[in-house]
Amino acid sequence: MTIPNIIRIAHGIFYVTDLAASRHFYVDLLGLNVLHETEGALYLRANEDREWTLKLELAPEAGVKHLAYRVGTDADLDALTAFLDAQGIPWRWETELDRPRLLRFQDPYGVPVAFYAQSVKHPWLLQDYHLHRGAGLQRIDHINVMTPDVEGVMRWYMDHLGFRLSEYTEDDHGRIWAAWIQRRGSVHDLALTNGAGPRLHHFAYWMPDMGSIIRTCDILAGARMPEHIERGPGRHGVSNAFFLYIRDPDGHRIELYTSDYLTVDPDFEPIRWHLDDPRRQTLWGAKTPRSWFEEGSLLEAYEGGWVQPRESDLKGLPVHVI
Amino acid sequence: MTIPNIIRIAHGIFYVTDLAASRHFYVDLLGLNVLHETEGALYLRANEDREWTLKLELAPEAGVKHLAYRVGTDADLDALTAFLDAQGIPWRWETELDRPRLLRFQDPYGVPVAFYAQSVKHPWLLQDYHLHRGAGLQRIDHINVMTPDVEGVMRWYMDHLGFRLSEYTEDDHGRIWAAWIQRRGSVHDLALTNGAGPRLHHFAYWMPDMGSIIRTCDILAGARMPEHIERGPGRHGVSNAFFLYIRDPDGHRIELYTSDYLTVDPDFEPIRWHLDDPRRQTLWGAKTPRSWFEEGSLLEAYEGGWVQPRESDLKGLPVHVI
Amino acid sequence: MTIPNIIRIAHGIFYVTDLAASRHFYVDLLGLNVLHETEGALYLRANEDREWTLKLELAPEAGVKHLAYRVGTDADLDALTAFLDAQGIPWRWETELDRPRLLRFQDPYGVPVAFYAQSVKHPWLLQDYHLHRGAGLQRIDHINVMTPDVEGVMRWYMDHLGFRLSEYTEDDHGRIWAAWIQRRGSVHDLALTNGAGPRLHHFAYWMPDMGSIIRTCDILAGARMPEHIERGPGRHGVSNAFFLYIRDPDGHRIELYTSDYLTVDPDFEPIRWHLDDPRRQTLWGAKTPRSWFEEGSLLEAYEGGWVQPRESDLKGLPVHVI
Amino acid sequence: MTIPNIIRIAHGIFYVTDLAASRHFYVDLLGLNVLHETEGALYLRANEDREWTLKLELAPEAGVKHLAYRVGTDADLDALTAFLDAQGIPWRWETELDRPRLLRFQDPYGVPVAFYAQSVKHPWLLQDYHLHRGAGLQRIDHINVMTPDVEGVMRWYMDHLGFRLSEYTEDDHGRIWAAWIQRRGSVHDLALTNGAGPRLHHFAYWMPDMGSIIRTCDILAGARMPEHIERGPGRHGVSNAFFLYIRDPDGHRIELYTSDYLTVDPDFEPIRWHLDDPRRQTLWGAKTPRSWFEEGSLLEAYEGGWVQPRESDLKGLPVHVI
Repeated sequence: MTIPNIIRIAHGIFYVTDLAASRHFYVDLLGLNVLHETEGALYLRANEDREWTLKLELAPEAGVKHLAYRVGTDADLDALTAFLDAQGIPWRWETELDRPRLLRFQDPYGVPVAFYAQSVKHPWLLQDYHLHRGAGLQRIDHINVMTPDVEGVMRWYMDHLGFRLSEYTEDDHGRIWAAWIQRRGSVHDLALTNGAGPRLHHFAYWMPDMGSIIRTCDILAGARMPEHIERGPGRHGVSNAFFLYIRDPDGHRIELYTSDYLTVDPDFEPIRWHLDDPRRQTLWGAKTPRSWFEEGSLLEAYEGGWVQPRESDLKGLPVHVI
Repeated sequence: MTIPNIIRIAHGIFYVTDLAASRHFYVDLLGLNVLHETEGALYLRANEDREWTLKLELAPEAGVKHLAYRVGTDADLDALTAFLDAQGIPWRWETELDRPRLLRFQDPYGVPVAFYAQSVKHPWLLQDYHLHRGAGLQRIDHINVMTPDVEGVMRWYMDHLGFRLSEYTEDDHGRIWAAWIQRRGSVHDLALTNGAGPRLHHFAYWMPDMGSIIRTCDILAGARMPEHIERGPGRHGVSNAFFLYIRDPDGHRIELYTSDYLTVDPDFEPIRWHLDDPRRQTLWGAKTPRSWFEEGSLLEAYEGGWVQPRESDLKGLPVHVI
Repeated sequence: MTIPNIIRIAHGIFYVTDLAASRHFYVDLLGLNVLHETEGALYLRANEDREWTLKLELAPEAGVKHLAYRVGTDADLDALTAFLDAQGIPWRWETELDRPRLLRFQDPYGVPVAFYAQSVKHPWLLQDYHLHRGAGLQRIDHINVMTPDVEGVMRWYMDHLGFRLSEYTEDDHGRIWAAWIQRRGSVHDLALTNGAGPRLHHFAYWMPDMGSIIRTCDILAGARMPEHIERGPGRHGVSNAFFLYIRDPDGHRIELYTSDYLTVDPDFEPIRWHLDDPRRQTLWGAKTPRSWFEEGSLLEAYEGGWVQPRESDLKGLPVHVI
Repeated sequence: MTIPNIIRIAHGIFYVTDLAASRHFYVDLLGLNVLHETEGALYLRANEDREWTLKLELAPEAGVKHLAYRVGTDADLDALTAFLDAQGIPWRWETELDRPRLLRFQDPYGVPVAFYAQSVKHPWLLQDYHLHRGAGLQRIDHINVMTPDVEGVMRWYMDHLGFRLSEYTEDDHGRIWAAWIQRRGSVHDLALTNGAGPRLHHFAYWMPDMGSIIRTCDILAGARMPEHIERGPGRHGVSNAFFLYIRDPDGHRIELYTSDYLTVDPDFEPIRWHLDDPRRQTLWGAKTPRSWFEEGSLLEAYEGGWVQPRESDLKGLPVHVI
């Protein structure tokens, strides 16, 4: 079985309940750029993105329609459908604006995913600095899925889709509580963390520098929306990134992220963290609010409705919780 | 009665119990520079300081010997002694290295203070960037005294020593919970916050930029001392400063501080904050650990021993406490 | 003779020939805020400024109407008129929007100046971070006047208006080529540099950090206006500031400036630089374009028309010129 | 013919004439870390590097021994030797400390290169922030070779070694003056610029942020070595990176580089710059010193001695030269 060539995480589609509020948050304050606007939907991209990376779709309830990966060529999509057929996983073709051929299925652990090879590219805005606004997000970086079966999901993406492990959290019994896996030589395209799920934990953008992340806090404070800042800014032990977690008007969690490291070497040795290592979540020892561990966005099921989250057997929060 | 010309906060003398541990903290990690070293004492300064601004003195118990202000000339010291005599406040001359004539007394609210006009200056290190180490502290900025009588202390320094009010926190009953007063056109030389005291709440250095404050967190984390980070980094509502509070090996609290504003206009109108305004402590809404409200450094009494802290009648912590 | 209490440099009024072009430059790109707009004039302020600090007035030719200082009280204005009468310097009262009583004269070296005590204050925008745009200028910092008589101007402001010397440039013959003098405890309110004049060399704003100065370059580049960047970014030897010089659409030179040091101590010893010290202009050794030495804005004469620039007897440029 | 899997640029070996001077420059000022020290050689690495990336070898004359790339596995080395044999290019095995099997040859355009799959890894220093010194270099980023045959070299690495084109500079006649080619999804592992060669134009490290690049300038200035700053800081049009070029005590040029973009998509469309586009070299329009175009490090020939640089037929410097 040929392993399809997955390039990178590529987009997310969020259901939101108030498009004007979302627009204010993502466009005015964070500075994402509107690439397309249709009745009931906004297609957004960060300054380096050459295609939309976040679609906001008006819906009665908030949630996530799907999360999409870019593959190398259409031949990789064919390899993928062959694999799905072999596994008995149902799939279908869908389309989205600028994405004529989107292979849509649900992974065995309940995550709605899509894969595509072709997309319409648009001139980037990276060097149009006079047009940058707000926080100045630079490019899509990764997603994080909360699941009661971290090890299962991790194995599936590594074994069948060629993901490679960067870092992981393990307890004394060898049970994996979190994993960071990647395709493009960065720390991760996909992070998996233990918890009731599957749900989307967060959707992350790369920031040009730490100053932009601090400016995000100031901007949200200036707009009298500090309650949208959930955690940080701080320095992760895992990934070494400088980070900030914020919540959009529907509670979708966005991470602003910068300054991690490269993992391109084929003999890169994954970094193991012990579950109780306080340096893991943040090098600085700051406590994490409980909401960060407990809340996430519902995922749309392949046949419609929401994927019902299942509790994890791994109980207990890390020591450093507020 | 002539009001003496107070120029600025000028130095602090801390009693510390382990000089090697303090040296590691202040010199190796924070990057303060050793100007003089004697048996049992270190005289430290930041990169812009032309004289020592923090003396660490080995002692059996941690505490603060005194906090000193620079005055204009010796004539201002004479004006000050005349004032003290008129008020019946005992005083004496002391000396410290590089400070031949230090007027030492205790303010009516129990804070051990010293004033001097003359000091030995040394070439600064500001432009010797190749010698800067660690966090790279730039200059002494202010002190914060915790006291059960914020309004009394505030009035005394404003009425008799010419301090001017920058910002203050008031409740619905017109009671003042905190005040920031200044002499040199910045937000404050002296901050007063409600609490059991008098005790030193913190001693603050100006930082060249926000990046240096973030680096301080990383350095303390690298040295496996994240527990010395108590609060922040964050953006104060009061002062608008970007801040970090850290604790030295004896628990003395140091604030790293940058990016406030000027108050030089004589008609500057003090900024009033309501006690319950969540933007006051931090614009970003981050919670403050309880220790920050409750812990402080003991002050040495004029006749020896410690000034015994007295509880405040103003009870209750702000809403945003962890 | 009582020396009037000068507080700080307070505003400039520029004649500009294309108000729309100026607005694009100062408001859209630099991020100054429009406080008032009248037929033919814009009143601008930076984010910390509580009053307008730069007025742009449409005129057939570019130039500078006057440069204004804030004084303590109206009594200081009276002291000033008494002094001017004693010196035989003509003066008159003028008004500007938000400045009901502006004492206007021309200093003996030809610089059109104004002094005021009262002004209308407006809520600042410092903590309205969501409204900050572009480069994000923070507050007025200083002005620089190019003159063939640096020492004369310097003495006049120091002897009669209480300015204090921070730094100066001297040659082997003891001739002063440049001087930085101040009233508010910073490095300078007024800089004087040798050259054909009097002309305004530049008008400077304080920036919140170095990153904002770099962003200014990127923004001007993004807007396809890199030719407005004249010199820098770099680190001055004098003042230690991180700086950038840009030119507005009429050629008026603006400096963006941050990270200098305090000069509040009365025994502050002015820093002397030798004319040929390459570290003086920039610590990094970057060359300065010739235009920076030769070009400046014409000043309006007290009786109307332009003050005619006079050549300096001190000839020769510093070594480090492109 | 199988194309060997080249992972990334991996190390350089510089001949230096004064190891103490080089150590001061690279270790004390730039903050590279000494991983190994032998008689006559220093093995250095940046904070993220898990193996040495720059070896300094004492020699009578300055130059470059070779430039090395990491390949996937030893099988890739075998594929490479088969290819070299087919092309009639001589090769040999060499060893270096921590590199037991180094395939050494000279590319057809005269550049001494080495390839290896195995190396000894060492714990990184990325999160040991308390040990970071000086400029704080983070990881090896790329090399730049000056050559009179940019297009030839570019084609050879793209056709035979799988490099992909990110950006290139072309004149009206379709002649390529510069090319940026990559293997690891960043802008480049190898840049090629027109000039007398082959010579090494520069060796580049990734910096954690722009502030670290500014600090490098300050540090070199503090150490009274500003003449080691050759160009920048500035923003490249090509790559969008914030950059600084410095020269080591032997004249080897080092670039400090940060903030470029990703090129992982297989349909990434290379960015074409016209030779005369002033935005290409720097978005900000700053002029480039002539030395930057004309000087480079000699390369050691396969059979010993130096590769003799050959003049380029493409004459003329870009418009923006000092």
